Amino acid sequence: MTDEIHCPDCKRINEVLSRVGDRWSVLVVISLARYGTMRFNEIKKNLGISQRMLSLTLKQLERDGLVNRNQYPTIPPKVEYSLTKMGESFREPVSALGYWALDHLAEIDAARAAYDKSD
Amino acid sequence: MTDEIHCPDCKRINEVLSRVGDRWSVLVVISLARYGTMRFNEIKKNLGISQRMLSLTLKQLERDGLVNRNQYPTIPPKVEYSLTKMGESFREPVSALGYWALDHLAEIDAARAAYDKSD
Repeated sequence: MTDEIHCPDCKRINEVLSRVGDRWSVLVVISLARYGTMRFNEIKKNLGISQRMLSLTLKQLERDGLVNRNQYPTIPPKVEYSLTKMGESFREPVSALGYWALDHLAEIDAARAAYDKSD
Repeated sequence: MTDEIHCPDCKRINEVLSRVGDRWSVLVVISLARYGTMRFNEIKKNLGISQRMLSLTLKQLERDGLVNRNQYPTIPPKVEYSLTKMGESFREPVSALGYWALDHLAEIDAARAAYDKSD
């Protein structure tokens, strides 16, 4: 292969994946897809994610239009998160990736062990 | 929702996504799927990735059993990369995520602009 190799879409794909392709975003989307509406502490407990990282992840997902944040004027204030319509459409490719990961966990572990042994 | 919320698979999904779910891995897999066998510098040029990051990404993908590294005893030595059988199976969910990203780039940009305006 020569100079004419190029990936015209790579820069743009990269741009979006850098926003939505990180693993915490993936797991928050899978959780909201599975459980519907969730409160901050429910997601936090569900994923075992730190307060700071979840706060950051939710803000990014909200900014990208994937997650709705609904605040209710109760005492104490109640804040719930759910997927937007675009978030719902993100669910399918994201779940496929998550399930692929689950299906191949053992095979990856075996590959790693073999690789480390050959060092 | 109450205490019984839990995501029994989350820890394991997280474990794999932390290995294979980063955006550079995604883009390297998409490139190899599209172009077949590639040399280091071809991937580098194709993705606009740094030498160091590509080297690290390829090593991780090789260790995870997703990418084959073939070295030929020529002068200078020729090293080529291609997807393993498991790498091929990873291609589908990864491409779906990449294409979703492309399809929704404009919508995400619009959501971001609206979010930033409301701050």
